[in-house]
Amino acid sequence: MSSNEFDLIRRYFWGLGGGEAIRLGIGDDAALLDLPPGEVLVASVDTLVEGVHYPEDTFPEDVGYRALAVAASDLAAMGASPLACTLALTLPAADELWLQAFSEGLARACADCGLPLAGGDTTRGPATVITIQVFGACPAGAALRRDGARPGDRVCVTGTVGDAAAALAILEERWHPGPEAAAVLLERFNRPTPRLALGERLRGAATAAIDVSDGLLADLGHIAAASGVAIALDSAALPLSPALAAAGEQGRAWALGGGDDYELAFTLPAEAALPEGCTHIGEVREGSGLSVDGEPADASGYRHF
Amino acid sequence: MSSNEFDLIRRYFWGLGGGEAIRLGIGDDAALLDLPPGEVLVASVDTLVEGVHYPEDTFPEDVGYRALAVAASDLAAMGASPLACTLALTLPAADELWLQAFSEGLARACADCGLPLAGGDTTRGPATVITIQVFGACPAGAALRRDGARPGDRVCVTGTVGDAAAALAILEERWHPGPEAAAVLLERFNRPTPRLALGERLRGAATAAIDVSDGLLADLGHIAAASGVAIALDSAALPLSPALAAAGEQGRAWALGGGDDYELAFTLPAEAALPEGCTHIGEVREGSGLSVDGEPADASGYRHF
Repeated sequence: MSSNEFDLIRRYFWGLGGGEAIRLGIGDDAALLDLPPGEVLVASVDTLVEGVHYPEDTFPEDVGYRALAVAASDLAAMGASPLACTLALTLPAADELWLQAFSEGLARACADCGLPLAGGDTTRGPATVITIQVFGACPAGAALRRDGARPGDRVCVTGTVGDAAAALAILEERWHPGPEAAAVLLERFNRPTPRLALGERLRGAATAAIDVSDGLLADLGHIAAASGVAIALDSAALPLSPALAAAGEQGRAWALGGGDDYELAFTLPAEAALPEGCTHIGEVREGSGLSVDGEPADASGYRHF
Repeated sequence: MSSNEFDLIRRYFWGLGGGEAIRLGIGDDAALLDLPPGEVLVASVDTLVEGVHYPEDTFPEDVGYRALAVAASDLAAMGASPLACTLALTLPAADELWLQAFSEGLARACADCGLPLAGGDTTRGPATVITIQVFGACPAGAALRRDGARPGDRVCVTGTVGDAAAALAILEERWHPGPEAAAVLLERFNRPTPRLALGERLRGAATAAIDVSDGLLADLGHIAAASGVAIALDSAALPLSPALAAAGEQGRAWALGGGDDYELAFTLPAEAALPEGCTHIGEVREGSGLSVDGEPADASGYRHF
C-alpha cells in the first residue's frame, strides 16, 4: 500500500486522541500516560475478527463502536476508572468509506467510555482484525477480582442478560421476533454498554466481579473456580428484556448460556445494598460448581476460540 | 474451536508471566501493573501479519521472538524502562507444534527484554496476526521524543544498519552472499535486539530518538519533521556490518533505505559524550528535510502499509 494511503488511515484516527491522562499521544514511538498518584494500571486487550466475532455485513460504525465497548467492559469488571486506549488495525485494503464509518463508531465509543485514543498500529493483512487495548486505573488493592466471592454473598447482575445471544439468533435467521424487538436486541449486540460507572461504584462493595462475555453461567463459573466456592442461581430471578421474557424457555436459555452481553456479574456481601439497575439472581455457597434451580449446571457458554 | 483447545493455548503462555511490576497477571478480566512512583506509563503496540511482516516459512520460535523485540524497540526509543507486555494472538487453528515453538521464542524475548507477559487474548481468524503491546515507565518529562532535535546536535545511531534489509534480499533470493554472512544477517532480521539499556542511558542526554523500523532515512525524516530541523548525513560514516561493507554501494543503499533494524537513531548535543557502540553519522542543521553527502534525499524507506 502506498504511503499516501498510510497517511490517510492515520488521519482518520488522529482526532480521537486528547484527554487529560494522555501526556503524549499518536505520532511518537509510544504514548505517555499519567496515572493518578497511588493508583495501579489496569490493562486489557481484546480482538475482534471479521466473520468470527461479528458478521461480515455489520455496519462499520457498529464494528468500531463494539470493538471499543467490548474491551472497555473489562475495565468495568475490574472497577477501573478509564484512562485511554490504543488500536491495532489490520485491513485487507484502505477502503475510505469503511474507514470513515469505522472511525466514527470508534470515536463515539471513545467519548461514551472516556477512553481517548493514545496510539496504535495500522497494518495490511488478509483479514480485518481489530485489537483494542484499554488502560484504566484504580487505587492499589481496590480492583474487583474474580477470586474474592465468599459463601453467603449474593450473586447479582446488571441490566438484562441474553439479549446479545438473541440478536445472534436473529442475525443467523434462527429466530424471527417482531421488528421492534429485533431492533432493540440488535442494538444491544452492536452497541453494548460497558458498565464503567457501576464498576467504579462496586469498588469496596463487591467481593468479586466479571463481565458477561462468554455467557452468564460460563462467567460465573470463572468466579466460582477462582474463589473456590459454589454458585446457585434462581432462573426465575434472571433479568430479561421484554423480548426475551416473551420468548419463554428459549429466552431463559439465552440468558444463562449466551455471551456478548457485557453486563457485570458480581458477588455482594449480605449487608451491602444492591445498587440500582442490578438484580439479585443467586447465592454463593460452600463447595464448587454451578447450579440452576437446585440442579447442577455446566458452563456451556459461547467460547471465543 | 473446542474449549479444550482454548485451554491448551492459554497453557502455553501462562508460564510467561511473573515480574515485580505485575500485581495481577493472566487469568482475570485485566492485568494490574505497578508503576514506579512519580513515573509515567509508556505504552506502544505493534502488529506482525504472517506473509506481510515475515515470510510464511519463518521458524515460529523466530516469529515469537521478533514480535516482542519489535514492540520492545519502541520502549527503547522512548528511553523507557521495561515493565510488562500483553499478547493478542489470532490463529487459523491451534497447531500444537507451532504454539510450542512460538511460545518458546516469545518467552526468550520476554526474558531478554525484561517484559513478562501480563495478559492477552487468543482468537480464531483466517490469518496469523500477532499484536504485542508493551508497557514501560520513565520519569515524567524524561522520555525521549521525536521533537527535541536542535541545530548543532550530532546525529547518531546504535549498532549497524541495513542488515535486516540485506536479510530480506536473501530471503527473497535477490542476493546470495556466503553462508556465514547470510546466517549473521538472517539472525539480525529474525532476532532483532531492542536497545533498551542504551535507551535508558540516553535519557537526559539525547535531544530526540526513534527506532529504525521504516529505514534510517525515513525515521530520521520523522525526527526532522517533528523537530522542525534539517538533517545532513555523511554516508561514509554509516556503520556497516562486514557483510554489508563488502556489498559496496548496495550495502550503503540498504543502510539508508532499508527498515527492520530496530537500532536507535538519536540526536546528541555537541557537549555530550558519544555512548559506546554508537556512531556519529551526521548533523542537525537549520531548515528542513534530509540530505546525504550534501545532496537532498527523500525518505524512501520501507512502508508498513
